[in-house]
Amino acid sequence: MIDVSLLGTGGTLPLPDRFLSSLLVRHGGRLIVVDCGEGTQVSLRRLGWGLKDIGTILITHFHADHIAGLPGLLLTIGNSGRGSDEPLSIVGPRGIQRVAESLRVIAPHLPYPIRYREMTGDSVDTFEIGDLKLRACLGEHDLTCLAYRFDLSRAPAFQPELAKEIGLPVQMWRVLQKGTPVEFNNRMVQPEEVLGPPRPGLSLGFLTDSRPTRKLVEFFTDVDLLVTEATYGDPEDQPKAIDNKHMTFAESAALGAAARAKNLWFTHFTPAMPNPDYFRKHAEAVYPGVVLGREHLSMTLSYPD
Amino acid sequence: MIDVSLLGTGGTLPLPDRFLSSLLVRHGGRLIVVDCGEGTQVSLRRLGWGLKDIGTILITHFHADHIAGLPGLLLTIGNSGRGSDEPLSIVGPRGIQRVAESLRVIAPHLPYPIRYREMTGDSVDTFEIGDLKLRACLGEHDLTCLAYRFDLSRAPAFQPELAKEIGLPVQMWRVLQKGTPVEFNNRMVQPEEVLGPPRPGLSLGFLTDSRPTRKLVEFFTDVDLLVTEATYGDPEDQPKAIDNKHMTFAESAALGAAARAKNLWFTHFTPAMPNPDYFRKHAEAVYPGVVLGREHLSMTLSYPD
Repeated sequence: MIDVSLLGTGGTLPLPDRFLSSLLVRHGGRLIVVDCGEGTQVSLRRLGWGLKDIGTILITHFHADHIAGLPGLLLTIGNSGRGSDEPLSIVGPRGIQRVAESLRVIAPHLPYPIRYREMTGDSVDTFEIGDLKLRACLGEHDLTCLAYRFDLSRAPAFQPELAKEIGLPVQMWRVLQKGTPVEFNNRMVQPEEVLGPPRPGLSLGFLTDSRPTRKLVEFFTDVDLLVTEATYGDPEDQPKAIDNKHMTFAESAALGAAARAKNLWFTHFTPAMPNPDYFRKHAEAVYPGVVLGREHLSMTLSYPD
Repeated sequence: MIDVSLLGTGGTLPLPDRFLSSLLVRHGGRLIVVDCGEGTQVSLRRLGWGLKDIGTILITHFHADHIAGLPGLLLTIGNSGRGSDEPLSIVGPRGIQRVAESLRVIAPHLPYPIRYREMTGDSVDTFEIGDLKLRACLGEHDLTCLAYRFDLSRAPAFQPELAKEIGLPVQMWRVLQKGTPVEFNNRMVQPEEVLGPPRPGLSLGFLTDSRPTRKLVEFFTDVDLLVTEATYGDPEDQPKAIDNKHMTFAESAALGAAARAKNLWFTHFTPAMPNPDYFRKHAEAVYPGVVLGREHLSMTLSYPD
């Protein structure tokens, strides 16, 4: 089960009624914040999922609207009781440590340690957050920007009838279920002997500040939920989308459709667009079930059975 | 005339219904922001006095709740149309350039130039913002923190009857009124000959993150409005006020009374105090007309006649 909530949906600058684009992910008691522009900590507090358990902050790129809230958030997490035995990971593109440490000129003393992790966007480069496997992919923006994908793999179902056939004592079932072989009747019983076929897990993608690319479509293939920037609603803003390396509603919808995303949320709306709903039809024409993001829009990704 | 508006009243961290302590000052078409924690730009936008005309940002000290909003605000001022011929001054304690430039790692490119001005808190150290004269005074906090005072001096009234006695042509009146001597009947006429007695000007003080001191009382003597921190309302928090180098309501009120401030506003409330009004009586017992600050509380300081 993965809980997801949009902390904000704005691009460029915070507005009185729109926080900057940011996503909160919760899994197994851990909280992960993806991007934190100015004011993200206020939206986090409003949502009420807590602050102390934020153990990972992912940064997509170094534009202020995606990272300016970092020093304040780090201080607030400290004020919420995170301690010296609870390190916090800050993950981002090359240079993340330099940029974050520069911002920490006003937050030099924190009660917990910080660990930095640069990601390259290379497909073999993964980072584990509990059971979640994180990967990154380079977007196409005017500076290095990473798209992120979380995958939660699911163990095959345990088949009691197979275990009974072998005659395995019940206390050994759990060990095999967890994927560890056990010794029984002078031989090693492999998990595969008592487990069913592979089952699909859960996945979540986050994309911002990018043009659409074939690589991104591949990266996000079959995600359960794709949260993507959709900066411009008006098709007439297509030239702006190209110039500023963003996407229109139609482009973001096409990306979601091409990746076969099961759910598609839009975020990172230009401040020049007070009512994204006005342009909804341009997205729905391409991806009928699209959801235009709003503050604290939430969803729980869970297994169908 | 000086317009003043509180942009926020919170200390330590921004809350869903409370922006961080910050003051906006307007005089002669110029806007001055005093402190800018995370979210100040949102409060500024809500107030609606504009962003482009912010030509000076004063920073009291380098705690995040007073400066974390700086890079975002600088970018937003740029987006509002401030251009290359409109430099913006950032004024603060020693080190302001180093700290601000470190934060500018995420706002390196601005369309207008930035000028830094360090203030020492020495009484002879002044900075002019149009007609306003700014001075600073060291507070007593756990790091260098400046209190600020703005003074607008008022020219003595022109006395037409005196000018007529001398026989001065009317076109010379304005020159003398502005303080410049003129030559008439083979002698220099001094402004004093046609001007009335000195008149009091307007003044405004801002104090945050400090214990009360005798020096601060002197610094703020006779201000028309003193905006001061009053972090703790509950008299039982007096030990906290001492430990954390802040003030209680009673202490802030006593400071305002001792300085003979004509108006007194409180700000910088601890996030642990959701309703400052509950403790109002402890301030009113010492300074009856005290005003507990709230977002966008505004006032115009003007001459009585």
